[in-house]
Amino acid sequence: MQAQIRQLLVAEMEKGHLSVGQRLPSSRRLAAILGIARNTVTSAYEQLVAEGALLSQERSGVFVASRSATPRVRLAAPAGQGTAAWQPELVVRPSTLHHISKPRDWQSYPYPFLFGQFDPGLFPIQSWRESVNAASSVSSVNEWAGDLIDEDDPELVAQLRALVLPRRGVWAAVDEVMVTIGAQQALYLAIRLLVGPGTAIAMEEPGYPDTRHMIRLTGGALHLMAVDADGAIPDAILSGCKVVVLTPGHQCPTTVTMPPERRQAMLDAVCRHGIAIIEDDYDADVFQEGPVVPPLKSTDQEGRIIYIGSLSKVLSPGLRLGYVVASAAIIRELRALRRVMLRHPPSNNQRAMAMFISLGHYRAHLRRVAQALAERATIAERFLPRHLPAVRWQRDKGATSHWIEGPAGLDARAMSVAAAAKGVLIEPGDVFFAEAARGRTCFRLGFSSIRTDRIEEGLRRLGELVC
Amino acid sequence: MQAQIRQLLVAEMEKGHLSVGQRLPSSRRLAAILGIARNTVTSAYEQLVAEGALLSQERSGVFVASRSATPRVRLAAPAGQGTAAWQPELVVRPSTLHHISKPRDWQSYPYPFLFGQFDPGLFPIQSWRESVNAASSVSSVNEWAGDLIDEDDPELVAQLRALVLPRRGVWAAVDEVMVTIGAQQALYLAIRLLVGPGTAIAMEEPGYPDTRHMIRLTGGALHLMAVDADGAIPDAILSGCKVVVLTPGHQCPTTVTMPPERRQAMLDAVCRHGIAIIEDDYDADVFQEGPVVPPLKSTDQEGRIIYIGSLSKVLSPGLRLGYVVASAAIIRELRALRRVMLRHPPSNNQRAMAMFISLGHYRAHLRRVAQALAERATIAERFLPRHLPAVRWQRDKGATSHWIEGPAGLDARAMSVAAAAKGVLIEPGDVFFAEAARGRTCFRLGFSSIRTDRIEEGLRRLGELVC
Repeated sequence: MQAQIRQLLVAEMEKGHLSVGQRLPSSRRLAAILGIARNTVTSAYEQLVAEGALLSQERSGVFVASRSATPRVRLAAPAGQGTAAWQPELVVRPSTLHHISKPRDWQSYPYPFLFGQFDPGLFPIQSWRESVNAASSVSSVNEWAGDLIDEDDPELVAQLRALVLPRRGVWAAVDEVMVTIGAQQALYLAIRLLVGPGTAIAMEEPGYPDTRHMIRLTGGALHLMAVDADGAIPDAILSGCKVVVLTPGHQCPTTVTMPPERRQAMLDAVCRHGIAIIEDDYDADVFQEGPVVPPLKSTDQEGRIIYIGSLSKVLSPGLRLGYVVASAAIIRELRALRRVMLRHPPSNNQRAMAMFISLGHYRAHLRRVAQALAERATIAERFLPRHLPAVRWQRDKGATSHWIEGPAGLDARAMSVAAAAKGVLIEPGDVFFAEAARGRTCFRLGFSSIRTDRIEEGLRRLGELVC
Repeated sequence: MQAQIRQLLVAEMEKGHLSVGQRLPSSRRLAAILGIARNTVTSAYEQLVAEGALLSQERSGVFVASRSATPRVRLAAPAGQGTAAWQPELVVRPSTLHHISKPRDWQSYPYPFLFGQFDPGLFPIQSWRESVNAASSVSSVNEWAGDLIDEDDPELVAQLRALVLPRRGVWAAVDEVMVTIGAQQALYLAIRLLVGPGTAIAMEEPGYPDTRHMIRLTGGALHLMAVDADGAIPDAILSGCKVVVLTPGHQCPTTVTMPPERRQAMLDAVCRHGIAIIEDDYDADVFQEGPVVPPLKSTDQEGRIIYIGSLSKVLSPGLRLGYVVASAAIIRELRALRRVMLRHPPSNNQRAMAMFISLGHYRAHLRRVAQALAERATIAERFLPRHLPAVRWQRDKGATSHWIEGPAGLDARAMSVAAAAKGVLIEPGDVFFAEAARGRTCFRLGFSSIRTDRIEEGLRRLGELVC
């Protein structure tokens, strides 16, 4: 409340509604007007006086000390300037890219079956606050407040190396890890480093749409690898490619975990053809269900694999923290590239995340989330056959979504519109295909975003639309 | 201390030094071993029990409940894999770019004359903590923890529009502002959107090295504009260019504030030639000294100018927050580009910064910093003529550095090495020039990073090197 009073006064002063030297109402009077305790107003006044926004003069009251300093010099509009909107020539039109559709106001829908979105109920607010407070000590602030240029918080790198990666069989030296703005930036930087106009690069079909968009932005020549029940197929497509992007942990969007035999075949093929691998392990740790299957990176002795993971997907997508593990030579280039683009991920968040991991909150959070997600998966898999008997669905252990193939006549995009009208959000599958028509009958059902007690009703409503 | 005990126990468990079921020492005994209060150990144990890392059994003690779950499946190394380091082909070599040199351990030097670095003594730790706490309420967390996809925290956008931009005469609609990972990312995204292979783009010589690097990464054709005592010169170089990057607020690195007549001439030329402007107002608000000169953007009625500013430079470079103001059509494309590259700047930091501004801390902080910087500037300008009589120096109002041209024989890069040996850090000027040899005698002296009471001695030591 005290803070709200200050916000109100600051806003009024900035807008010029309170001018310099103007006397404010007495704390008694303002308290009466607003119907709040007088000492709330008094302490708000005191704070603003301490900060120099107000002046306090004994016996006469509190006065406005600062005002909106609008510029004194004014420039005329230039001679040739029109008033109509002017359009520069653009070299790319990223707004035309075709994305996974998630309405901004998805939380207002009762049945949001979205992948990767956030259920506020699962956020560990107390332990996050403890971590942030620990990162806000004077000595911590001195360490993170400066410009790290191309480096990262050494504490977070240490926690990743000691407590996060080894559980997947990935051991990294200190110069083989870099922190990124989510796994998304790691993927972008790796593709930017390896792919230029005409570079032959393979990815899965269906696959992650943004991988395709990133390749398109670099001008790379896209080769599509077929996906079967074991994930991406290492066939003739690979020969001639310089790079392949893979999601062996959970193939995006089919959720398939690539089994050991296929992994071996893939690694053999990739080594034979001299191809670099970008391993996008985007949902590692998000949902621990059954034993951990090690990523391809755990076998990499020569630095062929650029391994990508996310921290923010586990905790909160809004935090935007991911990482990349690669050879020291590659990490050096990635750091130089990141430096030019934006320097480094905010170091206060890096430090808070380091505290979150080192205090044991990360591990405890994974356990709590796994329980909640296991319950949701069980419910979804009980009611999917009942309410959507006509579809085929797929979900491998540890995946937080179901990949659905509807009957031949289904138009999943039209269905998603009808479903939204019933309060149900799903993700149409066409966007995962370079040839969108191939995904017309498919859609994705995520269960990390929907409340456990709403899953059955959501599926029931959806079932009414799949005839 | 309690947290340190937990960090220690968590680390030992993760490393496998404490195995599942192992009994920990009693709280009394561990307290005795570590020489700390028993209740510190007790509460550390309780916290870890609550989080599931330890199990407490009545009368028998506290046991390790979880352990490092290393993967059960192991893959063999692929057939073709060597043990020597393997190198993929890279399409860029960003590590070869020539950067401004700032030693990572600059805080250990007694006389760091660096631009844009952070003096820990100026960080407003109490008001930042209040802002972070306000952003960590349950309702705030619910708003920022989700994936914003291509959007920003509406609170921060509102604060920028109401309290930050209008003081510079810039009025922006809600769809004309985007938040970025520092001004650096804003500059990168704008260049990426407007410049492709062969696009003619003009920038200042000398100018900001990273602008040159960004242009090089896009393949643009770089045209260099000469700089005089009024800043960049709008001459024939501009004809044929599609884009120009300008720093009229304080020309980087000469600190010249472009006067109104030159601004008018620049705007007229740019309109005549149909050129888009990227206005890099990187240090706006950092040091308020004298009246605010409005940016070119304040005259822009047709959306020709992409305006860039920084929030983190004012508060702490480690936070990485900046913004871009442009026409709605351009902001739409920038958002789509940012989405593919990394989604959005961390939304918890966006919210904390919104609180920082709205609570009046931003304005109060600017006042405090301005006082400290004014004192430093005064001292530097008193002792520069005394200790470095042979150099020419330049600093316009509100700049936080001096641009120095030494006598004809000076090799500033060699001098910077000699200076570092005496504990003095300076930034050699050659890196600001595309033709590095032209800057051989120049260097930059920043005073935001050096303690006020060390300026004179630092200049004295430097003076011994300029003969």
